[in-house]
Amino acid sequence: MVRRVRVGIVAPGTRLDPSVAERVTVLAAARHPEVELYVHPQCQMSSGHFAGPDAARIAAFVEIANDASFDAVWFGRGGYGSCRVAEAALPKLNDAARRKTYLGYSDAGVLLAGLYARGFQGVAHGPMPADITRDGGDEAVARALVYLSRRAADTLEPSVAAARKAVAFNMIILSQLIGTPLQPDLTDHVLMLEEVSEYMYRIDRTLFHITGSPAIRRVAGIRLGRCSAIPPNEPDFGQTEVDIVQHWSGVSGIPYLGRADIGHDAANKIVPFGAPPTA
Amino acid sequence: MVRRVRVGIVAPGTRLDPSVAERVTVLAAARHPEVELYVHPQCQMSSGHFAGPDAARIAAFVEIANDASFDAVWFGRGGYGSCRVAEAALPKLNDAARRKTYLGYSDAGVLLAGLYARGFQGVAHGPMPADITRDGGDEAVARALVYLSRRAADTLEPSVAAARKAVAFNMIILSQLIGTPLQPDLTDHVLMLEEVSEYMYRIDRTLFHITGSPAIRRVAGIRLGRCSAIPPNEPDFGQTEVDIVQHWSGVSGIPYLGRADIGHDAANKIVPFGAPPTA
Repeated sequence: MVRRVRVGIVAPGTRLDPSVAERVTVLAAARHPEVELYVHPQCQMSSGHFAGPDAARIAAFVEIANDASFDAVWFGRGGYGSCRVAEAALPKLNDAARRKTYLGYSDAGVLLAGLYARGFQGVAHGPMPADITRDGGDEAVARALVYLSRRAADTLEPSVAAARKAVAFNMIILSQLIGTPLQPDLTDHVLMLEEVSEYMYRIDRTLFHITGSPAIRRVAGIRLGRCSAIPPNEPDFGQTEVDIVQHWSGVSGIPYLGRADIGHDAANKIVPFGAPPTA
Repeated sequence: MVRRVRVGIVAPGTRLDPSVAERVTVLAAARHPEVELYVHPQCQMSSGHFAGPDAARIAAFVEIANDASFDAVWFGRGGYGSCRVAEAALPKLNDAARRKTYLGYSDAGVLLAGLYARGFQGVAHGPMPADITRDGGDEAVARALVYLSRRAADTLEPSVAAARKAVAFNMIILSQLIGTPLQPDLTDHVLMLEEVSEYMYRIDRTLFHITGSPAIRRVAGIRLGRCSAIPPNEPDFGQTEVDIVQHWSGVSGIPYLGRADIGHDAANKIVPFGAPPTA
């Protein structure tokens, strides 16, 4: 009998609707019974913008991360709030936490960054349970489940290769970590960046910030993920996101390596932080 | 005969409409003839989002800053674009530039920061020509003209005192400078922060970033300027901007010193960087 992979879902930012969690649980049971999902009750708590008070979100994350009976922590959704969790939670993690997989993106990138900065090896950027509500979202969730259970190569962003370290972030999330203790050392990493729902001028400003940091300038290069749902710029910005990243590549000297198959959408592929794991 | 103060207006970010510049020139001639304004033609250039191409904005700023016949550089308006000017322009500044006053806020804070980081003594956060279009905007512009001509004490933010260094920034602008060479050393400064048109969750995130930086934690304290035109948060954030700054004050150990009389409005008072100048 194959041992099942136990995955605990927590929501360090915004609340995960119980009906959405239920859809994910049903999909997992039907298509990937090798994965056992546990939805922490904290996911459906509510406190203003957040899935419960800071203390509850910190406690739920630490509880699952430190529990050796779980193989992975899966962040339920993004939204906003992980930065209120990370600084207090990370020092509480134990050795069991260090051996786990952590999967998420967007706002959850704050925790991915902080974990990776502390040397955790199982950190990955990829789909979350809430993605099931997207067009084609079942496939995004299935991709995450396949990654969590057996690290299948076809779940990975295509440029990910064993010989080259990589990371992936939402642009503004990485920007807002620069200079804090959560910023990981990205020397010699391929840095993949995606964005959603930001004006083009803000994408430009965020890439100024990211590429203007001497620490970030030690990356091997930047790959540009999808920039989606960009509101109309007034006046028209006159440059695409590719123009923008090429501009800042020229200013900073960071090589631009082309596109990355990541973004706030159902096609979002998985980027393990560091060198990719083997099955 | 009193020597007139010569002030050159440039637009390192967004275009300054010629009719707006004309209103400011008329007001200055009528109420403050001791100030001679020169509106650089670059102000009305247009290139996508910007007041002309990067090279034109860099050239105009450097031209006025380096010209010893001008006493001050006044940034025409904010918008966005100073970060595309600063890195190239600042190394070109000469000794005449070092003796000048620089006045502006919002996006222009990128240049204020970079100038102050290079030891310029005449940097100040305060009204710009484009503020004349605000309700009560004549008084904002008149305040700037009085400051530029004679540093009158009643133009200053009330907490500004000779014994204590201060700076002021738009929150997201300061956030996007952290970790770059434009970030000034703010050790022992009172840091005044204001914001406009940002969701409350973003104000929270930006204050996480600012207060999470070990370099920023060396400030003497934070004063909170006005946070205006905040779009509705969905769901309601449940905390005011004062709650938020007090939260991050508690996390970071940076003292919260109360409100500051600055903001994206006509009441915006002037904050000279460092210790305030004397008349």
